[in-house]
Amino acid sequence: PIHRSITGEGVRRTLRELQSILPELTLHEVPSGTEVFDWTVPDEWNVRDAYVMDEAGRKVIDFQQNNLHVVAYSVPIDRVVEWDELEAHLHSLPDQPEAIPYVTSYYERRWGFCMAHAERTKLTPGRYRVVIDSTLEPGSLTYGELILPGRETKEVLLSTYTCHPALANDNLSGVAVTAFLARWLREQADRRYTYRILFIPETIGAVAYLSRHLAHLKAHTVAGFVLTCVGDDRAYSFVPSRLGETLADKVALHVLAHYAPDFVRYTFLDRGSDERQYCSPGVDLPVVSMPRSKYGAFPEYHTSLDDLSLISARGLGGSYELHRRCLQALEHNYRYRTTTLGEPRLGKRDLMPTLSIKGSVNSTRDLLNVLVYCDGRHDLLDLATATALPVGRCRELIDVLHAHGLVERVGD
Amino acid sequence: PIHRSITGEGVRRTLRELQSILPELTLHEVPSGTEVFDWTVPDEWNVRDAYVMDEAGRKVIDFQQNNLHVVAYSVPIDRVVEWDELEAHLHSLPDQPEAIPYVTSYYERRWGFCMAHAERTKLTPGRYRVVIDSTLEPGSLTYGELILPGRETKEVLLSTYTCHPALANDNLSGVAVTAFLARWLREQADRRYTYRILFIPETIGAVAYLSRHLAHLKAHTVAGFVLTCVGDDRAYSFVPSRLGETLADKVALHVLAHYAPDFVRYTFLDRGSDERQYCSPGVDLPVVSMPRSKYGAFPEYHTSLDDLSLISARGLGGSYELHRRCLQALEHNYRYRTTTLGEPRLGKRDLMPTLSIKGSVNSTRDLLNVLVYCDGRHDLLDLATATALPVGRCRELIDVLHAHGLVERVGD
Amino acid sequence: PIHRSITGEGVRRTLRELQSILPELTLHEVPSGTEVFDWTVPDEWNVRDAYVMDEAGRKVIDFQQNNLHVVAYSVPIDRVVEWDELEAHLHSLPDQPEAIPYVTSYYERRWGFCMAHAERTKLTPGRYRVVIDSTLEPGSLTYGELILPGRETKEVLLSTYTCHPALANDNLSGVAVTAFLARWLREQADRRYTYRILFIPETIGAVAYLSRHLAHLKAHTVAGFVLTCVGDDRAYSFVPSRLGETLADKVALHVLAHYAPDFVRYTFLDRGSDERQYCSPGVDLPVVSMPRSKYGAFPEYHTSLDDLSLISARGLGGSYELHRRCLQALEHNYRYRTTTLGEPRLGKRDLMPTLSIKGSVNSTRDLLNVLVYCDGRHDLLDLATATALPVGRCRELIDVLHAHGLVERVGD
Repeated sequence: PIHRSITGEGVRRTLRELQSILPELTLHEVPSGTEVFDWTVPDEWNVRDAYVMDEAGRKVIDFQQNNLHVVAYSVPIDRVVEWDELEAHLHSLPDQPEAIPYVTSYYERRWGFCMAHAERTKLTPGRYRVVIDSTLEPGSLTYGELILPGRETKEVLLSTYTCHPALANDNLSGVAVTAFLARWLREQADRRYTYRILFIPETIGAVAYLSRHLAHLKAHTVAGFVLTCVGDDRAYSFVPSRLGETLADKVALHVLAHYAPDFVRYTFLDRGSDERQYCSPGVDLPVVSMPRSKYGAFPEYHTSLDDLSLISARGLGGSYELHRRCLQALEHNYRYRTTTLGEPRLGKRDLMPTLSIKGSVNSTRDLLNVLVYCDGRHDLLDLATATALPVGRCRELIDVLHAHGLVERVGD
Repeated sequence: PIHRSITGEGVRRTLRELQSILPELTLHEVPSGTEVFDWTVPDEWNVRDAYVMDEAGRKVIDFQQNNLHVVAYSVPIDRVVEWDELEAHLHSLPDQPEAIPYVTSYYERRWGFCMAHAERTKLTPGRYRVVIDSTLEPGSLTYGELILPGRETKEVLLSTYTCHPALANDNLSGVAVTAFLARWLREQADRRYTYRILFIPETIGAVAYLSRHLAHLKAHTVAGFVLTCVGDDRAYSFVPSRLGETLADKVALHVLAHYAPDFVRYTFLDRGSDERQYCSPGVDLPVVSMPRSKYGAFPEYHTSLDDLSLISARGLGGSYELHRRCLQALEHNYRYRTTTLGEPRLGKRDLMPTLSIKGSVNSTRDLLNVLVYCDGRHDLLDLATATALPVGRCRELIDVLHAHGLVERVGD
Repeated sequence: PIHRSITGEGVRRTLRELQSILPELTLHEVPSGTEVFDWTVPDEWNVRDAYVMDEAGRKVIDFQQNNLHVVAYSVPIDRVVEWDELEAHLHSLPDQPEAIPYVTSYYERRWGFCMAHAERTKLTPGRYRVVIDSTLEPGSLTYGELILPGRETKEVLLSTYTCHPALANDNLSGVAVTAFLARWLREQADRRYTYRILFIPETIGAVAYLSRHLAHLKAHTVAGFVLTCVGDDRAYSFVPSRLGETLADKVALHVLAHYAPDFVRYTFLDRGSDERQYCSPGVDLPVVSMPRSKYGAFPEYHTSLDDLSLISARGLGGSYELHRRCLQALEHNYRYRTTTLGEPRLGKRDLMPTLSIKGSVNSTRDLLNVLVYCDGRHDLLDLATATALPVGRCRELIDVLHAHGLVERVGD
């Protein structure tokens, strides 16, 4: 219910609430006017109220009813306008007459209202009082950053955006799943990687963050995930990195292949969230995203229909588990090599029955398949490919082999 | 209507006529007996008349009616022969009884006549006077060469053959389209590449030319095209280079994929024209060909049915445009890189609407897609692959990006 | 009819019989208790007789009837046992009630009998005399080795196993086909490669052999084949090496593609014979196998139904010819390069008709196709791929080209 845009108090309130479950989350401010790459941080926008009132004093549009009713970044106004002028500032979707569209104008000063087309057609010509009680003034852009150190200085990036007001799948879901992943990560006693978890406004936030941290991120990031539209349960999707060949692509495709084999595979041409910044030339971070129904690909996208009814515990939970499995796979993605030449004798280690008869279930087949690719070159994800097993199952088998001294980790 | 073979006055007359539209075209002579790689330039052949006359004085075969009636490179003869001897020197196609076949004997001295099988069966045994008024004597092989200098010394090769008499698709069409491409190229004020355009007899001409220019061609040629059978409008075809991985293959496949997506894709095993020489081991020039109906693949091939009715303005024009697009793509096939980190803000350059609402056609999608692959490694053809756009469209978008200073050409 | 296990007199007798056709075959002994990689050579097992006799003195199970009746490596016993105890030592296959299963217990001392399930159900409770007249004592493991020297010290490995008693496809067939291949090889006057041909017990034999010869094998082996289940005629199969990219894979796939294009293509996950050892990490020999019906993939596998009726002269002969073609291809797998630039003139060498007319069968097409890929980089197998011809046909054409001086062998 908090009204958020790319800047303003709504974002700060949201981040402060996240601190209650993620105490290490720190808030950062980038002053309006700061040059960040090709962009300039805009003025801070806050809105308290907005409405359009007819001559009878009835609010025909009311921000208090739905915070999508005002065009984001609308300048303040309090005037009585003629019908023609009002009409030029109204936005609706004839093809979705019940939906209030989500409209923004971050970099051009204007004002406007959004409404369901069905409501708009009921309006009658006349004079209307137009009130937007907003401020658009120098302030700052706010983002949240959470660093969870690991044994290695190499990092995994989780990035989600906080800017959309009252849209559920896009992207309250991303904030929620990221927060729960962060909570799970901070509970892990022994993290291999350092985790960098960002709650930022989309686009301008990613650009601002990159402009501050680019060299560090390029030097340390092994994989990253943009969490967007992860709340409904109609599909799993995959958007690769720009060239599609990073560790993030590799782990995501491995896990999706077993966890959600019917996932929708997009190309980088279908991108639309902060992978646009993270994967841009010269930035080139290894970042992918795994939405449920991808932004732009579901009818409720960027309208008031993207509300809490669209997302579900099952939808959010599925995304949480999918991402968690990717992180677990990364944590254990080492290369291994056998300690014996030829097949080891599993029987003397009680890993294989000592009597051989046809048709007895060969419980050692998977174990031997994993073992035979432990040649010091295949990492855990490669083992999963070579054996056609889920990466989690490979890890269990590696653990058995490791416990019996049959494989050793390369580098140990 | 000019009678041409691999040597002789017919070729010279044809090339002199081409000089009227291509004044820079130069004629070159290679003397008979010259050793060229594994070959020897044969004697020069000229024929003025040839006929077979029956005892009633009627010409039953007459070179003046169709210059395919005489086997190319026939030695002179003027004798009265018995029916059995004549029959042994007649060539016809039982499967295509209305067609006069095109027959050659460049390297074995013999004489012969070609005729429609339907006509042949009307001949009655008897004595016939056989006349071939030809000369086959030391002379020279003639070819035409046109060099159009560009800013770079790197070259693009266009090669077509002039040797077939009176066959339209194979290969009057090649001569015509090459001449028009040459005329278009010489009108271009600012050529990047130097263009080397050859009008040569097939096989022996290519071998002779290579034997004179091999080192230069290997050092300078970036791409080349053999123009053959480019006049009908039943198909587009592609014959790759020997290993299929040259710039010529790349540009041809890109342009064909959008210009003629149903094109017939042959392998190098289906080759048959001068790519046999240009792509031979040790020569290995980057040469492909893009016929319409490929030699050997259309029923009229190497018969009198391959006449002007087989080719059309539409057929020739399609080939002209296809090759022209390839040349344009090559001229602009630079690598680019972005001048900003992260996405640039298109709105401030009026390249994107400042108001964001769902469903407005995203005119900037293609622009951003091209931009995002400008990483200094993708050339224009790679950009077309990455964005799934026609290469010409990519070039337009690159021009927009370049004009706004958003990309720069690598090497500039 | 000779009873064989992984050790014992049966194996020695078998090998001595092979010496009658392969006099160079040498026998080697590895003493029981020898440590070989992760394994220990077990005691030597010999069995003279075994039966189960009912109270009426009738032998209800009799090793003299079928040597599968005793569990391999059964310890000696001569006792009268109660029904319950006997039952715990009986093995049968309810799903294949007519088949006696083949059961082994090499590394755990036990005794047991195998029988058809249909017979088992006829047994009635009571007391039975159980006799296994066996010895399981220190001795040695025996294998046969045949080295046929070639002009090069590089080697081709043929390996088959001798351990299974009375099973025909698995693996009397392997012993037979290997022996015939060895006989053919020793008759070849001029071998390029040295051939190492092994008759060993499965698994422990391969491990023992590798432990003695690993460095030599890794340094010299260019390709190897495990011969197993090569006797029936229901299918051809292919099991690749671990990474699938060795010369053995390449030659096998080439030959199979033309010789048995419907062959069943397995992955290394389907392995089951000594490629498990030869291809294990750190060993990594270039070894594949080409069974007919693969072990585990035919219903008679590891039962008494795998008898002589299952294999046939046609089945064995097909395997023999398949492997022979692979060996021939390897012997001739050189790289070639043309001696001319451009196409050579075939006409002057009588390799091409001097008269060119449409529709005459182009007998030189294959010859020119082979020639054009003789660029010093393509070996014979690559030529077969490039030209889509069987490798044997390529070799014939290379011979023609070589005889005319048109190609030369790289390295000569």
